[in-house]
Amino acid sequence: MNKVTPRILKGFRDYLPSTMLPKQRMLDRIGQVFESFGFAPLATPALEYADILLGKYGDEGNKLLYRFLDNGERDVALRYDLTVPLARVIGMNKSLPLPFKRYQIAPVWRAENPARGRFREFVQCDVDIVGCPDLMADAECLAVGASVLRALGIERFVMRVNHRKLLSALLRRCQIPEGEPALEVLRVLDKLPKIGEPAVRQLLETENHLSQAVIDDIFAFLKLDPKALNDWFADDPEGLQGAKELNTVLQLLADQGLADKVEIDFSIARGLDYYTGMIYETFLLDLESIGSVMSGGRYDKLISMFGGDEIPAVGISLGVDRLFSALIELNLIAEQPSPSQVLVTIFDESCRAQSYAIASRLREAGLPTELYLGLDKLKKQLKQADRNQIPFVVVAGPDELAEGQATVKDLASGTQERIAIEGIADHIKNAINSKR
Amino acid sequence: MNKVTPRILKGFRDYLPSTMLPKQRMLDRIGQVFESFGFAPLATPALEYADILLGKYGDEGNKLLYRFLDNGERDVALRYDLTVPLARVIGMNKSLPLPFKRYQIAPVWRAENPARGRFREFVQCDVDIVGCPDLMADAECLAVGASVLRALGIERFVMRVNHRKLLSALLRRCQIPEGEPALEVLRVLDKLPKIGEPAVRQLLETENHLSQAVIDDIFAFLKLDPKALNDWFADDPEGLQGAKELNTVLQLLADQGLADKVEIDFSIARGLDYYTGMIYETFLLDLESIGSVMSGGRYDKLISMFGGDEIPAVGISLGVDRLFSALIELNLIAEQPSPSQVLVTIFDESCRAQSYAIASRLREAGLPTELYLGLDKLKKQLKQADRNQIPFVVVAGPDELAEGQATVKDLASGTQERIAIEGIADHIKNAINSKR
Repeated sequence: MNKVTPRILKGFRDYLPSTMLPKQRMLDRIGQVFESFGFAPLATPALEYADILLGKYGDEGNKLLYRFLDNGERDVALRYDLTVPLARVIGMNKSLPLPFKRYQIAPVWRAENPARGRFREFVQCDVDIVGCPDLMADAECLAVGASVLRALGIERFVMRVNHRKLLSALLRRCQIPEGEPALEVLRVLDKLPKIGEPAVRQLLETENHLSQAVIDDIFAFLKLDPKALNDWFADDPEGLQGAKELNTVLQLLADQGLADKVEIDFSIARGLDYYTGMIYETFLLDLESIGSVMSGGRYDKLISMFGGDEIPAVGISLGVDRLFSALIELNLIAEQPSPSQVLVTIFDESCRAQSYAIASRLREAGLPTELYLGLDKLKKQLKQADRNQIPFVVVAGPDELAEGQATVKDLASGTQERIAIEGIADHIKNAINSKR
Repeated sequence: MNKVTPRILKGFRDYLPSTMLPKQRMLDRIGQVFESFGFAPLATPALEYADILLGKYGDEGNKLLYRFLDNGERDVALRYDLTVPLARVIGMNKSLPLPFKRYQIAPVWRAENPARGRFREFVQCDVDIVGCPDLMADAECLAVGASVLRALGIERFVMRVNHRKLLSALLRRCQIPEGEPALEVLRVLDKLPKIGEPAVRQLLETENHLSQAVIDDIFAFLKLDPKALNDWFADDPEGLQGAKELNTVLQLLADQGLADKVEIDFSIARGLDYYTGMIYETFLLDLESIGSVMSGGRYDKLISMFGGDEIPAVGISLGVDRLFSALIELNLIAEQPSPSQVLVTIFDESCRAQSYAIASRLREAGLPTELYLGLDKLKKQLKQADRNQIPFVVVAGPDELAEGQATVKDLASGTQERIAIEGIADHIKNAINSKR
């Protein structure tokens, strides 16, 4: 076998244990919050027939697909998000009871140009409610998102909401045709937080061929005071409907004590083609520069693209990797190289079986415990605890074992104590609790 | 946007919530057991440069890779297992402290011919110990595997162990050259449980061109009484070394009370090229026909293929999907459509805010609780609980709310009771506990 230089693809990452351990904790916590609202997990394949994904994310999205011919000459692609595969599942399983509340935590792949914070493989955490037209579903997606952020220790965030019907009414008012031309304008507006107003104005002029008057009108709307909304769309029933729905969702969030976490922002556009109703993005007030950490909206027509009747749907997606970076930057998460709370050393071969028994006892008591693997000098064994930040070490030599005891070292305080073997787990648990 | 028929690739599966929910519980439990032994999570990309994976799994493995040119004309492939990416990570991160104990739970892709129980995408759960030559590491991999099976409710299983050094000594004795010819024979022997002795004998004759005498000699060894091992290899130091190591690992497992869970089986060959020491497979005594559910071994030379010195390594991999099927067949897992323990209904719009408050209170008490999304008739709301097997329903109408109460229905018993709102969580928890 030939030697190969180990290397990783550009835009892809390894998560080594010291970062993956807190990330895994975060993912577990997110899943728990989703389940606490009654969302159930769904798993779909990484690979789909390409035509399932094509045409759902705009021309740019089509180009970003990892698409290839498989060994059987099938045209396949890695999933680009978790929403279209969900729509495919609903299309294939007509007998699923509705509303269908699912979550999925899984990687997606996009052949983007890698940049700071932008990767070609990243994890999405999605909740969606399929089959419920009631705006309570929209509000629930925002509420579960807010609960996730709070569960992760984030209180200072804002969910900015808008409505595709308002944007449609705006574009109609500007006499921009429905369909692809309107979607192209929305995709440009979606770049606003990234590239700023002057660049967006320029794109609207050069790419979308809009007049200065129209561009001014668009920006007047983006900065509109929400109170003036009904006047603005006085003659447009779709606009008025959008305004009404937006206010209803705000009220439903206020009913849940979330009034201060949500605000209207007419500049939220969302780049994806399939939204039809409420759309939202979420920003961390202490780290707004990293962009939206959680976004989504209502997409009532996507599922019917896979045949059958229109089925309403609404969802929200967490950008976990971005959120994880934010938590580290905000000191809400610390690196941790090992899950072990205890290292049980091996004094010598004669004591090994009893060390096994002690480790097993500690695990049964719920303490992650690793055993030193070998018969090295105690000093070397202790170094392993130090290196992996394992807070407690158990040393069980022949003298101690003869009395049914072992020595427990607390590496942080430098203290040690001889304890009866059956009391070690409680001793360590008490020490952990008293440090918290 | 054109309508597309929703369909899924052959050999790939969706896990709908009723099966994914228990599967997710199983994966969480497996991760917990891994961490209880001090293994920390590692995440690697789904895609690797093809040459990282090529040549590690034999010619057949090379052909089964999902390999393609990406948009940047890079030759890439989806990972085939979790072991080679681990070796790549070690090769790229020379400063990682050793021993490095990691687990990874993630899908892998193989373009196999789909058959009953054989899929093109399946989840692997691996633990590996890198950088520890001591046989305690081999024993720990088996011990953590045994703990996983027990944590999943399986007591009747057997781990069958063998040693590549014994197989090497056997093939040397049969004058089969080292390297590819020897590996080809091992790959054929690995098929024994699937295709049986006559078919293996025929392959050894027609494909490997072995004489009847040699084939007889091989089968005599495969059926050898372990007690006769030292005699058989009396003149072969590598064979004797393998025998000694095998006995040491058996002793280390006996020290952990696992003597009855492990046995020597010289017919265990493992198809993968990279093993160098102990190899093992695990069978469920009540469902042996599904094949090995957990297997692995020592591979001391793989990591040096990515440059640098040889670094010893040993690991074990759980075939989660196979194990999950087994657990369903053995009635150790039941389908479950929703994680919700409680459905909170909405009596009418005036009661909605208080229903939100009740749901939020139940979630805070640790009860997964979903709220009915809409203002439908109560009968329709109750049907949703029934359909999703949600055991408890809370009804909070104006009369009850005026007294700070709500009605809790136990759908299994058909009973209902009016309870003060602050006592609902405890009431339901007690009812759940009394049913267990």
